[in-house]
Amino acid sequence: MSLYPSLEDYKVDSMARAQAQQAHQQQAVTAAASTGQVALYPSLNQYMGLDVSQWAAAHGSLEVRHAGSGHAQIAPVTQQSVGLRRAEIRQGLRPVTLCKGADGKLGVRVKAISQGLFVAMVYRGSPAALAGLRFGDQIVEVNGEAVAGWSADRAAKAFKGCPVNGIQLMVRDRPFERTVTVHKDSVGHVGFVIKDAAITALVADSSAARNGLLTDHHIVEVNGQNVVGMKDDQIAELMKKSERTVTVTVMPTFVYKHIVSCMGKSLVRKWMDHSIVDEDF
Amino acid sequence: MSLYPSLEDYKVDSMARAQAQQAHQQQAVTAAASTGQVALYPSLNQYMGLDVSQWAAAHGSLEVRHAGSGHAQIAPVTQQSVGLRRAEIRQGLRPVTLCKGADGKLGVRVKAISQGLFVAMVYRGSPAALAGLRFGDQIVEVNGEAVAGWSADRAAKAFKGCPVNGIQLMVRDRPFERTVTVHKDSVGHVGFVIKDAAITALVADSSAARNGLLTDHHIVEVNGQNVVGMKDDQIAELMKKSERTVTVTVMPTFVYKHIVSCMGKSLVRKWMDHSIVDEDF
Repeated sequence: MSLYPSLEDYKVDSMARAQAQQAHQQQAVTAAASTGQVALYPSLNQYMGLDVSQWAAAHGSLEVRHAGSGHAQIAPVTQQSVGLRRAEIRQGLRPVTLCKGADGKLGVRVKAISQGLFVAMVYRGSPAALAGLRFGDQIVEVNGEAVAGWSADRAAKAFKGCPVNGIQLMVRDRPFERTVTVHKDSVGHVGFVIKDAAITALVADSSAARNGLLTDHHIVEVNGQNVVGMKDDQIAELMKKSERTVTVTVMPTFVYKHIVSCMGKSLVRKWMDHSIVDEDF
Repeated sequence: MSLYPSLEDYKVDSMARAQAQQAHQQQAVTAAASTGQVALYPSLNQYMGLDVSQWAAAHGSLEVRHAGSGHAQIAPVTQQSVGLRRAEIRQGLRPVTLCKGADGKLGVRVKAISQGLFVAMVYRGSPAALAGLRFGDQIVEVNGEAVAGWSADRAAKAFKGCPVNGIQLMVRDRPFERTVTVHKDSVGHVGFVIKDAAITALVADSSAARNGLLTDHHIVEVNGQNVVGMKDDQIAELMKKSERTVTVTVMPTFVYKHIVSCMGKSLVRKWMDHSIVDEDF
């Protein structure tokens, strides 16, 4: 079963498939006519509303493949989007190796939620930022020790007690977040209203509404770039920059508020890392 | 950057890589000795605590590839797990085509949350169950009409007004859920306590604690099979059945309660679809 990053991708894809099939059928008819054969019977598609083309498209049948580019087309619009790839949240654990900075700190603050430790703050230019830790990541191990049930204080102490080099963390990819890809309309709008980074309203029939963006969520990333602590106009500026599609990463507001509640607003605004994370893909 | 489905996968994988590299170095030493060359200098690994092997492993360098099976090993333990694949939650939209059953119903109940429509109930044996709709899926379109802002009643009316055949839904893969893969220990325990399908406690140093399972979450799937409405002993029975690893899909308790609040407990227990969803992969 194929998934599409956004509704627009699905529409464009199914349109392309339909056209390809149409062209293929046209060819077949022309070929039949040129050899003097006449189509006595309607094609299977015309029987009883049974639409084989959709089944064929879903199963990537020979017909579509032949007419298409040689392989099943998926996400023809956004497949080149860097933001989509940067923002991807995969369900799994990844190892992160850190060393302490010149000030002897990792540059990360954590918050305990339901027996788990979550990254609440990544300081700009700190080792944690360079290693690619992100807001909302769940830390499950520090130097081989499971952190389940730790308080934030205990974690801070453990970080302090770590050696300078080779600190090994195991991290789960931002469990409370998810991404939604939306497309800009002809005037560059994506169709939602934010206030203090919270989505407060959706514009009817906009791309955001069509793609199932929800209110009561906070925006934490735009095209994979952390925006926690940014002002609304900075976030709008970021969204303006991307060409056709914007991938926003959202987090339910109650979780977001719980995570940032431990920190002063000015601290987050001043020191939160907003660099673009680029892994080697 | 590679992700591992569980911490145990990471440990096994890094162990396998280390052994492969060790064997390769051993070979190199033997080869050098047989040609009469003597290693005058220690290898780069022994300098200054700089561990190149980890970098090499992360980047799938030639050395590891050569020693290994020809491609980077990821998830050697669970890669064959059917439950892991069944339970996968991908960030995207998928089309679902439905027709009405003999009773003129789709067999689905929805709940409105934050301007979105979510699947709250899939009746056993209904068209919705056969089409692979799952508890927690977000419906974003019904027959080409965006549903943002709809109430559950309006959705029910829209379903009623649909033609019998070719009802086309666009569905987002269970947005509020995520999967955690845990491994059984030698006595078959995975290390968490459930009460009415809610995770109430984690066993210290168990696989569940190591892999970052959280309390305040409800279990909605075991190995990709819906367990909403099952009794705790039925869920335990299901987990017992799987061999080494169990993939549980969890949802924050407050979202879960909000979704199931519109339905009677006995209704869910009696009619919720618990079939195993098997797509063609």
